[in-house]
Amino acid sequence: PYGIAPHFVINNREYCVPMVIEESSVVAAASSAAKFWKTRNGIKAEVIDIIKIGHVHFYWQGEPAKLRYFFNEKVEELITECRDITEKMENRGGGILSVNLLDKNHEDKGYYQIEINFDTCDSMGANFINSVLEKVAAKFKFLVKTSVDFYGIEKDIDVIMCILSNYNPDCRVKARVECSIKELGQFPNGIDALKFAEKMERAVRIANVDPFRATTHNKGIFNGIDAVVLATGNDFRAIEACGHTYASRSGQYRGLSECTIKEGRFEMSLEVPIAIGTVGGLTGLHPLAKLSLEILGNPDARDLMKIIGAVGLMQNFAALRSLVTTGIQKGHMRM
Amino acid sequence: PYGIAPHFVINNREYCVPMVIEESSVVAAASSAAKFWKTRNGIKAEVIDIIKIGHVHFYWQGEPAKLRYFFNEKVEELITECRDITEKMENRGGGILSVNLLDKNHEDKGYYQIEINFDTCDSMGANFINSVLEKVAAKFKFLVKTSVDFYGIEKDIDVIMCILSNYNPDCRVKARVECSIKELGQFPNGIDALKFAEKMERAVRIANVDPFRATTHNKGIFNGIDAVVLATGNDFRAIEACGHTYASRSGQYRGLSECTIKEGRFEMSLEVPIAIGTVGGLTGLHPLAKLSLEILGNPDARDLMKIIGAVGLMQNFAALRSLVTTGIQKGHMRM
Repeated sequence: PYGIAPHFVINNREYCVPMVIEESSVVAAASSAAKFWKTRNGIKAEVIDIIKIGHVHFYWQGEPAKLRYFFNEKVEELITECRDITEKMENRGGGILSVNLLDKNHEDKGYYQIEINFDTCDSMGANFINSVLEKVAAKFKFLVKTSVDFYGIEKDIDVIMCILSNYNPDCRVKARVECSIKELGQFPNGIDALKFAEKMERAVRIANVDPFRATTHNKGIFNGIDAVVLATGNDFRAIEACGHTYASRSGQYRGLSECTIKEGRFEMSLEVPIAIGTVGGLTGLHPLAKLSLEILGNPDARDLMKIIGAVGLMQNFAALRSLVTTGIQKGHMRM
Repeated sequence: PYGIAPHFVINNREYCVPMVIEESSVVAAASSAAKFWKTRNGIKAEVIDIIKIGHVHFYWQGEPAKLRYFFNEKVEELITECRDITEKMENRGGGILSVNLLDKNHEDKGYYQIEINFDTCDSMGANFINSVLEKVAAKFKFLVKTSVDFYGIEKDIDVIMCILSNYNPDCRVKARVECSIKELGQFPNGIDALKFAEKMERAVRIANVDPFRATTHNKGIFNGIDAVVLATGNDFRAIEACGHTYASRSGQYRGLSECTIKEGRFEMSLEVPIAIGTVGGLTGLHPLAKLSLEILGNPDARDLMKIIGAVGLMQNFAALRSLVTTGIQKGHMRM
């Protein structure tokens, strides 16, 4: 089920956004919200950063300070070891950003991570990241084993796994809309602009304090996000897992969007990690993924993040607008 | 991309499981793990419960005890008001399980919920739940407004929204495998049964303590879950949002599976909320969803929950088996 949602004005450029979803009402709702904001300054979107993360998870028994000293001495060697994999990515402007040893003994005795941050440019970079991690792990294991500084069980780095993390909180986009309250206009059931703004603000606040509501609130956001992720041949399970972990980062699962009323202005925003690619993987192989990217004007990864963030925000606005005015049953049926 | 994963033996019955996913390696991995366990007692699965939840979210200013007293007096009337909607569901063995007033003043001043628990039998029940909630809200608002017990602003129930929750922790399934450690056999890179069991146990423990790993660990589980959810015409965003909120219920985002080694036996299990339907929605309308249910022998909702839980567990086992033995790159390429 392939649909197109027109009327998205993002950073002053208009897009028709391809969406793959079994509920046609989601496409209609997203487009309806985008049309609403088209005449109210459009949607602004910015990429916070595009850092991706991977880990070598290992166990080692010994004095932590000794391992750290050795690691710091060898870190350049570990990076050099991966040069044949990283060279191409470096030519495109990306590569390894940092390599750190994390002592996780407080979580489980003997547990450590080598955490590597990456810039994978316009690719999702999964194979690249995993290949670097596996190479770093093998080299580090070898260096420790053959070092004259370590004795007995100290020589054994027990690598459990080398794997990218789907939790990429610093690969994040922010989408935002705002207008004066009176510009919001009139709504069904005699709800005026101010009453609407207040109900929206309360609806967002409820999702912030109540996990039962937050789950459904964010589910609506991902209705929009996943539809574009699917249309462009990206992996929606990765996006979902990352976004929901981000929603729980405070120690309580909360809504991902914010809504404020200040000095007569209404503002709504969504900040969410979106780790996607526009080259590699299925994006260029699947004819519909390729078509989707063409329809969007062949965006780079950063621009696609902005589009996806904007669709998530519009989906949230549309769902809440239905909920606080006509109710979801009537609002939904109309779509 | 529609595939079939054979070899699933769940509660002594063999299934070929339809999976819709763009990564064919996921289908191969699930089936490979199922085949492994087929000769080791198969997979056991049980439904914990199938309770679904919805809320009327409203604000009211006044003495909480006064509202509670009034609510308790009127609760039967609220249930009776919905009889025309609930009658059919009751004939099928479901309906409203409980109706409670929750005082949320500690979260936001004046905030209350009417929380309703439902049994929606073999349907997802979204429209049913939302319709009941909207009717209860309208009736309660009316009763308060026309009551002689309330004065001034007390008469105003400000309903913000009526909506099901996608967070259904008590609509949950548990899938489990176990065998003696020596039955596990030999693994690549000279890893014997005990070493394999220990590495698996550590890999699961890491996902329990580290959110960066937990996200990816659970993402793998949802690779399997979503593929069956999609194949049977259910809503994967709902399943994802619910499962990830459940993963964060302790105050830290954690892996959903468990692994124990005890008295010479290896056990792995997955407990996860799965709110799906086998009647209504797309399940009967879409020809491939209908076909999927036929291939599975037309399961009811509880049996489909068991199948989905089993696939999630097998996906987790397969991913970890690759990670702790050959590494994901080699393990993945082979698939």
